[in-house]
Amino acid sequence: MRVAVLGATGTVGRTFVRLLSGHPWFELSKVVASEKSAGKAYGEVVEDSPEEFEELEIVSLSDFIKDPDVDLVFNALPASLSLEIEERLAEKIPVFTNARVHRYDDDVPILVPEVNGEHLELIEVQRARRNWEGFIVTTPNCSTAILTVSLAPLREFGIKRINVATMQAISGAGFSGLSALAIQDNVIPLIDGEEWKIENESRKILGKLRGERIEPASFSISAIATRVPVLHGHTEAVFLELERGDVDDIKEAFDSFDPLRKLDLPSYEKPLVYTDVPQPRLHRNRGKGLTVTVGRVEKGENGFKYVVTGHNLVRGAAGGSILNAELAYRLGYLK
Amino acid sequence: MRVAVLGATGTVGRTFVRLLSGHPWFELSKVVASEKSAGKAYGEVVEDSPEEFEELEIVSLSDFIKDPDVDLVFNALPASLSLEIEERLAEKIPVFTNARVHRYDDDVPILVPEVNGEHLELIEVQRARRNWEGFIVTTPNCSTAILTVSLAPLREFGIKRINVATMQAISGAGFSGLSALAIQDNVIPLIDGEEWKIENESRKILGKLRGERIEPASFSISAIATRVPVLHGHTEAVFLELERGDVDDIKEAFDSFDPLRKLDLPSYEKPLVYTDVPQPRLHRNRGKGLTVTVGRVEKGENGFKYVVTGHNLVRGAAGGSILNAELAYRLGYLK
Amino acid sequence: MRVAVLGATGTVGRTFVRLLSGHPWFELSKVVASEKSAGKAYGEVVEDSPEEFEELEIVSLSDFIKDPDVDLVFNALPASLSLEIEERLAEKIPVFTNARVHRYDDDVPILVPEVNGEHLELIEVQRARRNWEGFIVTTPNCSTAILTVSLAPLREFGIKRINVATMQAISGAGFSGLSALAIQDNVIPLIDGEEWKIENESRKILGKLRGERIEPASFSISAIATRVPVLHGHTEAVFLELERGDVDDIKEAFDSFDPLRKLDLPSYEKPLVYTDVPQPRLHRNRGKGLTVTVGRVEKGENGFKYVVTGHNLVRGAAGGSILNAELAYRLGYLK
Amino acid sequence: MRVAVLGATGTVGRTFVRLLSGHPWFELSKVVASEKSAGKAYGEVVEDSPEEFEELEIVSLSDFIKDPDVDLVFNALPASLSLEIEERLAEKIPVFTNARVHRYDDDVPILVPEVNGEHLELIEVQRARRNWEGFIVTTPNCSTAILTVSLAPLREFGIKRINVATMQAISGAGFSGLSALAIQDNVIPLIDGEEWKIENESRKILGKLRGERIEPASFSISAIATRVPVLHGHTEAVFLELERGDVDDIKEAFDSFDPLRKLDLPSYEKPLVYTDVPQPRLHRNRGKGLTVTVGRVEKGENGFKYVVTGHNLVRGAAGGSILNAELAYRLGYLK
Repeated sequence: MRVAVLGATGTVGRTFVRLLSGHPWFELSKVVASEKSAGKAYGEVVEDSPEEFEELEIVSLSDFIKDPDVDLVFNALPASLSLEIEERLAEKIPVFTNARVHRYDDDVPILVPEVNGEHLELIEVQRARRNWEGFIVTTPNCSTAILTVSLAPLREFGIKRINVATMQAISGAGFSGLSALAIQDNVIPLIDGEEWKIENESRKILGKLRGERIEPASFSISAIATRVPVLHGHTEAVFLELERGDVDDIKEAFDSFDPLRKLDLPSYEKPLVYTDVPQPRLHRNRGKGLTVTVGRVEKGENGFKYVVTGHNLVRGAAGGSILNAELAYRLGYLK
Repeated sequence: MRVAVLGATGTVGRTFVRLLSGHPWFELSKVVASEKSAGKAYGEVVEDSPEEFEELEIVSLSDFIKDPDVDLVFNALPASLSLEIEERLAEKIPVFTNARVHRYDDDVPILVPEVNGEHLELIEVQRARRNWEGFIVTTPNCSTAILTVSLAPLREFGIKRINVATMQAISGAGFSGLSALAIQDNVIPLIDGEEWKIENESRKILGKLRGERIEPASFSISAIATRVPVLHGHTEAVFLELERGDVDDIKEAFDSFDPLRKLDLPSYEKPLVYTDVPQPRLHRNRGKGLTVTVGRVEKGENGFKYVVTGHNLVRGAAGGSILNAELAYRLGYLK
Repeated sequence: MRVAVLGATGTVGRTFVRLLSGHPWFELSKVVASEKSAGKAYGEVVEDSPEEFEELEIVSLSDFIKDPDVDLVFNALPASLSLEIEERLAEKIPVFTNARVHRYDDDVPILVPEVNGEHLELIEVQRARRNWEGFIVTTPNCSTAILTVSLAPLREFGIKRINVATMQAISGAGFSGLSALAIQDNVIPLIDGEEWKIENESRKILGKLRGERIEPASFSISAIATRVPVLHGHTEAVFLELERGDVDDIKEAFDSFDPLRKLDLPSYEKPLVYTDVPQPRLHRNRGKGLTVTVGRVEKGENGFKYVVTGHNLVRGAAGGSILNAELAYRLGYLK
Repeated sequence: MRVAVLGATGTVGRTFVRLLSGHPWFELSKVVASEKSAGKAYGEVVEDSPEEFEELEIVSLSDFIKDPDVDLVFNALPASLSLEIEERLAEKIPVFTNARVHRYDDDVPILVPEVNGEHLELIEVQRARRNWEGFIVTTPNCSTAILTVSLAPLREFGIKRINVATMQAISGAGFSGLSALAIQDNVIPLIDGEEWKIENESRKILGKLRGERIEPASFSISAIATRVPVLHGHTEAVFLELERGDVDDIKEAFDSFDPLRKLDLPSYEKPLVYTDVPQPRLHRNRGKGLTVTVGRVEKGENGFKYVVTGHNLVRGAAGGSILNAELAYRLGYLK
């Protein structure tokens, strides 16, 4: 299938391009960016471009919209540009997007393949309601992606209540999103909108599909999001109350969580690995960035606690989105 | 009063020496360290020594023990050396210590002046039980000191439950305690013994003095402690359930918290300042390091949340200990 | 004297304001910034404002230009805004500026008081040529300021040749000048225009006043400028060839360099201190940021080598500029 | 060939093990470390062990010495342990070492394959003089390795004089060699012995083999070595005087430098790549860490200047040593 990456020169866009290099199913045929870069070779603008895409000419967004001519779109544009463009493209073409603008629509799934693959059925609802040939599938916000992978195997124990404090990497803020003078030797405990996203997206992702909509999970959740001086890899300290189960049950559930192994998706890696002390620099590249590392599970006075870390640009953005497309392909949603 | 600092060349010891420079009540007359440094001028071993102490000759620990000849001791020795030495000194001299070894004794207070000054009454219990002329007063572990200052004004609302994730600075691990290769571009979510200390020391500090012992506070508490690449300043994300009160009550309680203002202690600073986004690099030196900065108070699904940051070496160690001695002096415990 | 700081909310401007707090000669009466901040209290916009200036209302640049009504201006505006504004103000008022736009004018000194105080005589040339009542005095680029302070005492040995590699702090790039994602865990060996400035400003500063102009020093100089992940404090590795002198002569010259001691300027500190291993984090605040630290002097195969470090925002910008004004005041250039 | 890595659990040792994973010629059959680790599985001690070596049992150094039973030894032990051990092993077995203890022996080459492959002929001298069946080949100190790769193509222009300032990564100091509190937000311009090594090893490596010894290159060289807060990748600012040639000649020489391409060594990568702004985080992994990145070549008043960066653990240690062994193998020195 011929695919395009929109916003291909940004932090997430570059990750899409890197991960699509050598992909067995998806052939990157268009890299789309702003007018400023249009016409240049991708390797001229992005220094660390994979060799196979160095010569690919960057297409301007306005030109692309006029004549997409691809089978699939990955969107890494900022939210401000995405609303209209995604809807227009979805009339004809499947759109897998990292933007937040459609995440909270009733008929659009926020997909983490290992967690809620069945939410892909909303595609049919979308197509029916909106009269589209394509569709929109979103990835969650990066810290939510990492959190929900760790929560998925614990659903069987009845999740009642979550408090989560995140320590997020600077690459999550985009290339020029965070000033060095702000974060050097510092922790910044404010990331606009992040806590709301973590709370609401988690409930939707872990919710149940009921007819044409998703019934959000019933747990209560409270998040504090902070930025720390780490390049890549979001780390999260999780306090959790369950209806049943003990520490050994939780570890066993983490260890055995491998739900899509049989589907043989090209990018699939074991989604969760248990390690005594998960650390972003040591573990962010596990499973090519798709594996989330969990550890320090203990029982405390307020239920359980554990720590989880994962690659924000791969598991939390581009890698998750490609996995979404692979699942959709395998399940027949891409003709 | 003539005072000595034990362990004067370590990270906490240097902070003691710096803070005692120009102190109106306490005159630093002995700096005590290992045999290796003994006999050298303090300024020769410690590059950033205050000028007034540069010429002070370092005394070896063994020589000091034989003939202390001071009115007061501040202890910054590691736990492994402190147990015996503190007890021997306390037979004659008041000891204010940063070591953990006596913190959990029934008759020894873990003191944070603004929080539990009345626990100083345990000094009489100590003296009676142990037949000492001196006594031992401990400071809490650094992250506990910062946390309890922020919890103290909230006691009136009935603290039921706390989950706290810490992001601790590297200076908390001592000068050679943490390898650069370990923490560079990383978060390490394991600090040995720290979580237990936060949980148990908080309950003791916020507990009530009942006759000859302290009844620990009844809230439940669970901590996850992490290390982040920040030089000084521990930051803590706090999830909190109260029996009553709302966000405005909490902010008002933070703002008006200033319990020892009238005592006119030389080092005293307003212990708590509210700021929208507390950050260790920006706020660690507030109130010469004794002021704790709190912010981001919000109501969430699981009660309240807020963030607090403070200087681990000052509020969390040497500065807190000097404030302890000042309070004891003001209240007449130092003759 | 009533003074204004232009660009008072930027990185350098804030440093000006901080250093003017409690100044015995200069009373900060106007803080000038963009329209966006105009009308707000300074403490509302700048969180760490000195208390005494928190209530000062920010004046917009356009309003200020219409009616300056001060005796002296410190300029921390970007170069793009400075050319015209400085010239207009200088018609009536002395301007001490950190901007580069007038540094290379024949009749404008680049002043480092301890190095080339006599260049102040160019003020008369300016006034005569330009028919101004005021004048313009510039500070050098930050790394040049630090370098020239270390070179000044070596002039007596005949400086022939300099190669200098700088390791510059991120605060030199302004608040939003450098992306965290660019510099985290990295060295960036390119700072636009910096090498040219170091080379040419050094020669002018160390040059001799000949009648109405400065004859640049005759040494040859080559610079490589790099950015490193340090908050404040530029460090420079200097390779130097002299006509005469040995290592002891150089150390002695560094130690005894204290040229303006007798003038009793309010901000003056010994400009140079020798230390075995100069380091930005340990030494940047020496002498309130005005003292430059030098060390590691050795003789090698290609002449001498040494390392120098100093505070880029204080010695290298605002502090140097205030010292310039103090010298001008003392020497009678401010009536 | 069956190979052993001595000091396999240290920073350089781990890099050897990682690079030997899947090596077509060298089969890692023994990982050797201290008594403390002996008997444990390699993967138990080293968390990020390559899968294929996780189960390999660690052999103690003393046991290994008694019965090496391998065809080749890579040594990553500290200098203090290496002198005697290397000599004893070399009686029978070829030793490729990262330790400095034999680097300055007349009959031992400091080898950088692309630079001075012909120095391997010293092996015959060693064998004759010392009556050994094996031999010792050393790698240079890490910053020297990177520097000499960049100097090699410039030999044809007549190198007269070099001043070099290094900015070295923390991994060069070993796992616990550098305290986080020392280097965080800092530059440390002192690395013991480093400057002497750079100066003397460079001349030997770029020297000419004359009969049984190497005549050092005749250029003069002076180095200032600093440590910066970068994880991996040493960066060097080089000031250089040549007898002839201009900037274009230098760039052309860098671009075309690819001396061993034809030998088809398994680890070989183009040793030098030209980039506008070389940066350690962006370029340290080029060519799997064996490619050195050079850029910013300019002509200045004191000759030329440029910047070079490379991976200190790969090009500067383990990777260079493996390449040495590959060259020796290809040239028939390993039977």
